[in-house]
Amino acid sequence: MRATVIHLEESKIREVANAGMGRSDVLAFWFGESDEVTPEPVRRAAMESLGRGETFYSHNLGLPELRSAIASYTSALHGPIAADRVAVTSGGVSGLMLSMQALLDPGDEVVAVTPVWPNLTAQPQIMGARLRCIPLRPQPGGVWVLDMDALLAAITPSTRLVIVNAPNNPTGWTLTRDEQRQIIQHCRTTGTWILADEVYERLYYDDPSNSVCAPSFLDLAEAEDRLVVVQSFSKSFLMTGWRLGWLVMPAEMTHHMGKLIEFNTSCTSVFTQQAGIAALQHASEITPRVVSHLQVCRDALVPLLQALPGIEVASPRGGMYAFFRLTGQGDSLDLAKRLVREAGLGLAPGNAFGLEAQGWLRWCFASRDPERLVQGVQRLKTWLGV
Amino acid sequence: MRATVIHLEESKIREVANAGMGRSDVLAFWFGESDEVTPEPVRRAAMESLGRGETFYSHNLGLPELRSAIASYTSALHGPIAADRVAVTSGGVSGLMLSMQALLDPGDEVVAVTPVWPNLTAQPQIMGARLRCIPLRPQPGGVWVLDMDALLAAITPSTRLVIVNAPNNPTGWTLTRDEQRQIIQHCRTTGTWILADEVYERLYYDDPSNSVCAPSFLDLAEAEDRLVVVQSFSKSFLMTGWRLGWLVMPAEMTHHMGKLIEFNTSCTSVFTQQAGIAALQHASEITPRVVSHLQVCRDALVPLLQALPGIEVASPRGGMYAFFRLTGQGDSLDLAKRLVREAGLGLAPGNAFGLEAQGWLRWCFASRDPERLVQGVQRLKTWLGV
Repeated sequence: MRATVIHLEESKIREVANAGMGRSDVLAFWFGESDEVTPEPVRRAAMESLGRGETFYSHNLGLPELRSAIASYTSALHGPIAADRVAVTSGGVSGLMLSMQALLDPGDEVVAVTPVWPNLTAQPQIMGARLRCIPLRPQPGGVWVLDMDALLAAITPSTRLVIVNAPNNPTGWTLTRDEQRQIIQHCRTTGTWILADEVYERLYYDDPSNSVCAPSFLDLAEAEDRLVVVQSFSKSFLMTGWRLGWLVMPAEMTHHMGKLIEFNTSCTSVFTQQAGIAALQHASEITPRVVSHLQVCRDALVPLLQALPGIEVASPRGGMYAFFRLTGQGDSLDLAKRLVREAGLGLAPGNAFGLEAQGWLRWCFASRDPERLVQGVQRLKTWLGV
Repeated sequence: MRATVIHLEESKIREVANAGMGRSDVLAFWFGESDEVTPEPVRRAAMESLGRGETFYSHNLGLPELRSAIASYTSALHGPIAADRVAVTSGGVSGLMLSMQALLDPGDEVVAVTPVWPNLTAQPQIMGARLRCIPLRPQPGGVWVLDMDALLAAITPSTRLVIVNAPNNPTGWTLTRDEQRQIIQHCRTTGTWILADEVYERLYYDDPSNSVCAPSFLDLAEAEDRLVVVQSFSKSFLMTGWRLGWLVMPAEMTHHMGKLIEFNTSCTSVFTQQAGIAALQHASEITPRVVSHLQVCRDALVPLLQALPGIEVASPRGGMYAFFRLTGQGDSLDLAKRLVREAGLGLAPGNAFGLEAQGWLRWCFASRDPERLVQGVQRLKTWLGV
């Protein structure tokens, strides 16, 4: 086996979850997933497709009807995007891996903004690329900010790809439109590709009356810019387990992406794609409900955490995580394991997402019943002895 | 984009299919897929899972219940295989790609036996490996055979991986147990990994009264041999569109494969895995029916082809393809396109699978109604003017 693969770090989140395995009394907030089932009309569409016998191979790039529905959905949010720029993928993570395969030769230089979902930094290593991380910086009060000068200085003509996830998992950090403009303009001069993981774009709370969406690179980019945007049905449509996502890319890339899809997964099941079509048809019912519920969850959890002594946490502008630091505790992974064992509270360790997040913990607040969050805080409080 | 990816050859099969796009009068035998819907009990299991709301993330390596069912199924065919050697993948092709990622560093040397499904030779290129093809050799009468001396001479201590697909798509060539023994023994001395694509193992017609299965490397290998076997639900269970397969590997590799699954697709949908469990529960009804029907198809098609002048074709021992040469014709791809346009007959060009198969054509005989095959031969006959 490759040493690269042997040394790929196992998920620290899963390590914590394993520590709680078989304990039904743990309140688990470690995974990035709601505990709510996919809405019935979406499931029904898949069941009907199966009933019709849609069990054959389909187009590498996705059903034309789904690609066209995605193009309409994306265009409504970000301005005109043609369907020939869209590829359906077997989950957001597959879209990310396909993008890495399309762009990264062995030895290529990649810059990633961290902390970030560890898959984004593992994938370049699998492709034999060299990774450089540019850390966000935590401010007093628990807000994380980008050091734009550091990021732009790191992106040179030797940089093949920059990877940015905003709204960010785990910090909730979100790029402003102006920051996106600076990154695009800089990458145009260096010839660097941007891989934007925007799967949390709809989980955005900054101005609920006006915003339906966080700022996207698609709002500013030209169709031919070296930009690939990764999207997923997982978060905005409660479809984590389905493995359905999509890519938006320059039109001349799409054909080549189709080849890579053939060589990785060949296609996504038709019945899963039919569920995606139904989800988009019901988007105006499903997503606003999901988002407003998540905002209720956030606003139930964060003030309770803020009221505890020795905790630093900001209310996130986007995403579904409260990211916080507990003063006077050591290694995040040890801390998270102790919380499972001693408090029955399941959180993700910050250092799973980057070294700079050592000492932090991630709490997924996507809970059908916000009361679970209150109970979780109570357990933390008891454990802290406050 | 990477030059490697731009230059990856597009599927010549798809190129032929595109030439027939929008023509409902084409009798298509180009893809490796039956035209029969997945059996009802299998579809029902997925629908019931969706009804129960099983729409969440699941284990990277697959549901324990499915891994255990796969281990039992495999053990019954090939002797004891523990569940900790099994990983569930999102289709056979994903299992192949994961194996390449696990084994191939940039620049590594790979030997592949060809002609073969083009995905198997594209994947090492995506990983930046160097590929050397060892061609099977066609004999008078249309049977393809392995030059074992050439293969073993090509596998040296510098060879990281040897890729073998038997029963073979497209030729129907099948490894004998003795040939498998020679390859294993040789690879033990060179330290070379064997990646065995055995997805056609159940479609084997050599001795229908005794054989349930083609010879497998698993019959001979030790648990710790450097061997990865790729399997799929697609062919033996009529589940092409589902994207469900599995790997059997040395136990110490499984944990690392789980990481690669996390970074590629995270997991396979639970409802798809539930369908897999149902398929295995019904294996003794489904697979023998599929195989005996395919044998009827083979025996309907091949003698008719053999009766045509200027055609060289052997009855395949395994798989679901008749692979034949038409004397006096040029490039396979041109020929296949002309057959679509001029005869309304859709076949796959031999040179899609390797240069040595230039001049050959692949006919998938997995047809619910064997009469379609007879009609196809009639069209070929008319086109040939015989």
